[in-house]
Amino acid sequence: MAQDPEQVGKAFLEYYYNLFGSNRAALSSLYQDQSMFTFEGNKCQGAAAITAKLTSLPFNQCKITPGSMDFQPSISGGILVFVTGHVQAEGESNALKFSQVFHLMPVGTSFVVTNDMFRLNYG
Amino acid sequence: MAQDPEQVGKAFLEYYYNLFGSNRAALSSLYQDQSMFTFEGNKCQGAAAITAKLTSLPFNQCKITPGSMDFQPSISGGILVFVTGHVQAEGESNALKFSQVFHLMPVGTSFVVTNDMFRLNYG
Repeated sequence: MAQDPEQVGKAFLEYYYNLFGSNRAALSSLYQDQSMFTFEGNKCQGAAAITAKLTSLPFNQCKITPGSMDFQPSISGGILVFVTGHVQAEGESNALKFSQVFHLMPVGTSFVVTNDMFRLNYG
Repeated sequence: MAQDPEQVGKAFLEYYYNLFGSNRAALSSLYQDQSMFTFEGNKCQGAAAITAKLTSLPFNQCKITPGSMDFQPSISGGILVFVTGHVQAEGESNALKFSQVFHLMPVGTSFVVTNDMFRLNYG
């Protein structure tokens, strides 16, 4: 894979967090049946279950502001993406810190999310 | 690979953070020439460069206390490990929050770290 991990990863994050904040159901197409998602320690697998989880989170619109973004090619293929940042739910005055990890795998000319882990970073 | 990701991952983390806090040079054997390490955005590759980086961090003894630990099998092989926790350098009264990601790949009956990304989570 000749694509630059940083370039691919940044484009992915911009796309992903825009939808995460405005229309999480639309993230469904990024996941496949084998994809895994762990949100605050709760695991689910497959695009359908992941979309159900994403759309049932206890907030709707939100704003994600990435702070650090790290990218590495994976020896076994694809790209590892590691983000720390802030998430602010609509109507909330306080932003919460979070960290998130993605493993992106190439499919044709695009990428799918095979692994996704999200954690809020409390005090 | 029939091994349970959580069991393998927890054993790895206990081993890793014990050495990270007491004898970082000994972590060298966990990395290979292809291994990548990104510490606070600074990238290096290969066991020698990673060990040099690890042993040049601006603190020696420290205590790592993992908070959350998430584990997922990677579709492309191995295990993804995602940790958030606290690191407290010897002689410092304040612990700092951090997040870290590892991709572990099986080699024989053991594992090597192919990817490692570390970030402190400042306010």
